[in-house]
Amino acid sequence: MNQQQLFEQIKKKRSFLCVGLDTDIQKIPKHLLDTPDPIFSFNKEIIDATAEFTVAYKPNLAFYESLGSKGWESLEKTVSYLKSKHPDIFIIADAKRGDIGNTSNLYARAFFESMNFDAVTVAPYMGEDSVKPFMTYPNKWVILLALTSNKGAFDFQFLRDEKSGDYLYENVLKTAQTWGTKENMMFVVGATKAEKLKDIRDLVPNHFLLVPGVGAQGGSLQEVARNGMNDKCGLLVNSSRGIIYVSTGEDFAEKAKIAAEEVQKEMEVLLKEAQLV
Amino acid sequence: MNQQQLFEQIKKKRSFLCVGLDTDIQKIPKHLLDTPDPIFSFNKEIIDATAEFTVAYKPNLAFYESLGSKGWESLEKTVSYLKSKHPDIFIIADAKRGDIGNTSNLYARAFFESMNFDAVTVAPYMGEDSVKPFMTYPNKWVILLALTSNKGAFDFQFLRDEKSGDYLYENVLKTAQTWGTKENMMFVVGATKAEKLKDIRDLVPNHFLLVPGVGAQGGSLQEVARNGMNDKCGLLVNSSRGIIYVSTGEDFAEKAKIAAEEVQKEMEVLLKEAQLV
Repeated sequence: MNQQQLFEQIKKKRSFLCVGLDTDIQKIPKHLLDTPDPIFSFNKEIIDATAEFTVAYKPNLAFYESLGSKGWESLEKTVSYLKSKHPDIFIIADAKRGDIGNTSNLYARAFFESMNFDAVTVAPYMGEDSVKPFMTYPNKWVILLALTSNKGAFDFQFLRDEKSGDYLYENVLKTAQTWGTKENMMFVVGATKAEKLKDIRDLVPNHFLLVPGVGAQGGSLQEVARNGMNDKCGLLVNSSRGIIYVSTGEDFAEKAKIAAEEVQKEMEVLLKEAQLV
Repeated sequence: MNQQQLFEQIKKKRSFLCVGLDTDIQKIPKHLLDTPDPIFSFNKEIIDATAEFTVAYKPNLAFYESLGSKGWESLEKTVSYLKSKHPDIFIIADAKRGDIGNTSNLYARAFFESMNFDAVTVAPYMGEDSVKPFMTYPNKWVILLALTSNKGAFDFQFLRDEKSGDYLYENVLKTAQTWGTKENMMFVVGATKAEKLKDIRDLVPNHFLLVPGVGAQGGSLQEVARNGMNDKCGLLVNSSRGIIYVSTGEDFAEKAKIAAEEVQKEMEVLLKEAQLV
């Protein structure tokens, strides 16, 4: 999917919502545990209930890997289901991978060939050759960690470079832009640092930003939108727990739908405010 | 496995060799492709041929993930085989993971519960809460990326912090030592930066270092050992391609054994030089 197609979908659905499929076997409704693949059953129902309000889904790999090869199968089924049933939706592997060049190549093969993801999140610590292999596939994306939403972000991401005076995360944003384009690269910027989003948008005017941390982690959607939107929206705002775990009863999908629609309505207001719809 | 047990194994085998199981379906001998699980068949033969010279094995996850759930199964079988046949050997998941705290918890579950690895490599970018969940399991280890062996290491790892004057990788080494102990934390330091190892050993006197990049990537074993050893050896030096892909014929395991023994002999000399055996 290219940037324009993503923007068209945002305008059509009046939403820039990404739903995080952080599907934890210990948290899903008990009645699903009797199905042959509880994780996939959960994802399928969540997807069917929320797809009309959602432009992207983001399974976090940790949840699937914690179940071993069975979990990996559930993930493969989820991606296949999304691609066949909702082919217009953007699918992000929240994998935070990154290794030396020839190894990153294999991760790219895993997510873009063995599975049909549109994007993979990647950690920047190992630099250019660890990131570039993900950008050799047409219409596939790397989403690079820049400023994360967690407390540990303060350990290294705010170290200031002696030479430029830039924070490490600013350095990542500046340097990484020379590796790719707005058509194959996005950045992760946590909503819990929304006050920084204006400056970040100045540094990265044209790229999409993936913004986790709204909802359970405390970030404000209004602040994110007002500080971070560009003329193609330029934002995918993720919500996981706030949508998929609203209810743990048999009505979980219905409740997820209501929660997703609520967020979509808020997003529609913000898109109108920005005169994008 | 605790630090002393690892050191005992090093003394017994007169080796600090870690064999990287970077098992690529496109590179293994063709005759294995007819077996039900070629990746596992390859690993099993390599392990049986090299175990007497080897203190650790390090499957890199990218190679297994690139084959989807089937690859994950081969990995699970490899770890189970190692634990049952060679229970004294240290097994490292070279996964370079790291995510917000509750998600890193699930990665820890994947590698330490769902599979029985002894250690996982983790990227430091997201800071303390992304690393700590891996250190809550007794006798399990986190191996944190500090200075990597690839060209991209120069993009961010050598940025100097305005306040302390330290390089980023030095900052990682100093800060991360406050999160764990020499009993649950090691650091990755690439052999291609062996001239830095003396300074790094001064910063981190007591922790084990995992050193990739000897052989195919150009690092020197002698230089690594002379600059990096401490009184418990403190080094695991990884070789992958230089051992597992010496031959792509039916004699691949035999040739791997010869290659591993050669490295072990060199290591024995270095251990004697340091009066550790």
